[in-house]
Amino acid sequence: MTGPVVALSGGIGGAKLALGLARILEPDRLTIVANPGDDFEHLGLTICPDFDTLMYTLAGVANTQAGWGLAEETWHFMAALERLGGETWFRLGDRDLATHVERTRRLRAGESLTEVNIDLARRLGLRVLLASASDDPVRTMVETEGGRLPFQRYFVERACEPVVRGFVYEGAAGARPGPAALRALRQPDLAAIVICPSNPFLSIDPILAIPALRFAIADSAAPVIAISPIVAGQAVKGPTAKIMRELGLAPTPAAIARHYAGLIDGFVLDERDAADLDIPTLATATLMDTLEAKKALARAVLGFAARLAG
Amino acid sequence: MTGPVVALSGGIGGAKLALGLARILEPDRLTIVANPGDDFEHLGLTICPDFDTLMYTLAGVANTQAGWGLAEETWHFMAALERLGGETWFRLGDRDLATHVERTRRLRAGESLTEVNIDLARRLGLRVLLASASDDPVRTMVETEGGRLPFQRYFVERACEPVVRGFVYEGAAGARPGPAALRALRQPDLAAIVICPSNPFLSIDPILAIPALRFAIADSAAPVIAISPIVAGQAVKGPTAKIMRELGLAPTPAAIARHYAGLIDGFVLDERDAADLDIPTLATATLMDTLEAKKALARAVLGFAARLAG
Repeated sequence: MTGPVVALSGGIGGAKLALGLARILEPDRLTIVANPGDDFEHLGLTICPDFDTLMYTLAGVANTQAGWGLAEETWHFMAALERLGGETWFRLGDRDLATHVERTRRLRAGESLTEVNIDLARRLGLRVLLASASDDPVRTMVETEGGRLPFQRYFVERACEPVVRGFVYEGAAGARPGPAALRALRQPDLAAIVICPSNPFLSIDPILAIPALRFAIADSAAPVIAISPIVAGQAVKGPTAKIMRELGLAPTPAAIARHYAGLIDGFVLDERDAADLDIPTLATATLMDTLEAKKALARAVLGFAARLAG
Repeated sequence: MTGPVVALSGGIGGAKLALGLARILEPDRLTIVANPGDDFEHLGLTICPDFDTLMYTLAGVANTQAGWGLAEETWHFMAALERLGGETWFRLGDRDLATHVERTRRLRAGESLTEVNIDLARRLGLRVLLASASDDPVRTMVETEGGRLPFQRYFVERACEPVVRGFVYEGAAGARPGPAALRALRQPDLAAIVICPSNPFLSIDPILAIPALRFAIADSAAPVIAISPIVAGQAVKGPTAKIMRELGLAPTPAAIARHYAGLIDGFVLDERDAADLDIPTLATATLMDTLEAKKALARAVLGFAARLAG
């Protein structure tokens, strides 16, 4: 298989597979489309948490313990902000802050989110293309028993405690596709579209809710492969299992596969799980604790895609 | 003398006397009006360098060695910004940055500069009133042999190297006076208006260029006292002497006094200097190396004002 690959990803879990793909593919063969639904305006800054987690992970500067932010971070800005009575529920490290300040400055100067984000990633040494899903705002709103919450209020401030009833991707229906993301998905020789093991509701659906991206994925001749973020009834990290239960879904790989029904051509689940599905499945090691494991899963997914493409 | 006092001040030298005044007066008797001419927009943030130097000095958290910024500052934001290709000619420390981010956020949310700045100062523990000269932008532009430069480009980026021909205070003619500054200057029982030993062109004239403030100073029954920033032919710190020579002025206390002619009722110069002026003068120790020296000069200035009010 020699064609290009597109991966759709959120942060943390998705970023692990994105890193595996980046380590086994020539840089010009890989485009990663980042979840825009977590993006928000905070302290007057445009913050793109999943894009940044992917960027920092691929640049080798991520705080892999926390799953967000930069390694060897300091927090003096935050302490000073607290002293001034500023909002401190969303933690911004001193180094990380430069990303948000510089992004916001360039957006205000008229550059597009795609342009700015690609250039920031390039400055950090990325050679794969990390594409914004849209240059327009797409914002995940969480419908909870207590009312609608912007994603970060739900996720960070409320620590995913409110019971979820559903999700709205504000702005998605009218959002133009990110030009780099769309171009990547339209490549005629595309070898695979990989849906990383991210939360389907919070990390993948905001991308799929952008009509032109969903159409491009559905139109592509390339096999679309999703990897289960649920292993042995648990999310490896994050609230996926809790949310699935609140939505009345069993936290199983099969429920994930059904969520993507009609869109995916193959499904990858952990070797300790089973699912009786009407599409091809691959059971393999999906935990990705080491770089080798990340690369091994990436190779397995691309091999599976090659077999599906026949 | 028991009436209230207003001081007009830039950073560094002016802030030393402001601190002396703050340490000898009951907090509700002192209002300090900060030079607005150094303010600028940078990285999308509203930065008020002289206000902040005064705020940090009066809060006891200033970097007194550098003359700007916070003590025990760190620079991780700046290093990360440099890696991202951002502008680094104006140095913003990690803790200092919180002031600019929070100020900018609150201004965008609709608060006035006066409101925001007074509250930031209060959060840092200030009990004297530190008043913005205007809620409208007043920006010092430096006319140099090579053309017009915004103040910070001249002062920081070019390190005061270009030869100065004159100054323009953009926005001043139409600027509304800061309400707290105007209210302070209009107090009927005002005991003194103190022009701190700041650069007259860069730190005091931007305040005086705001018509309502200049009128209020001229109208006040209180004695107006200026303190020379020039001692023994030198500026204690900063480019005052160099600028005076470039403008064809001798760098002497007398030239400073003449600059304020018609506005001031008394003039304070260092005991090692002399000036033959047609207004009352006081020669005393003006260097303010220690807190005691700052308080001593403050007492001397207020005593001089009391004698002039006689």
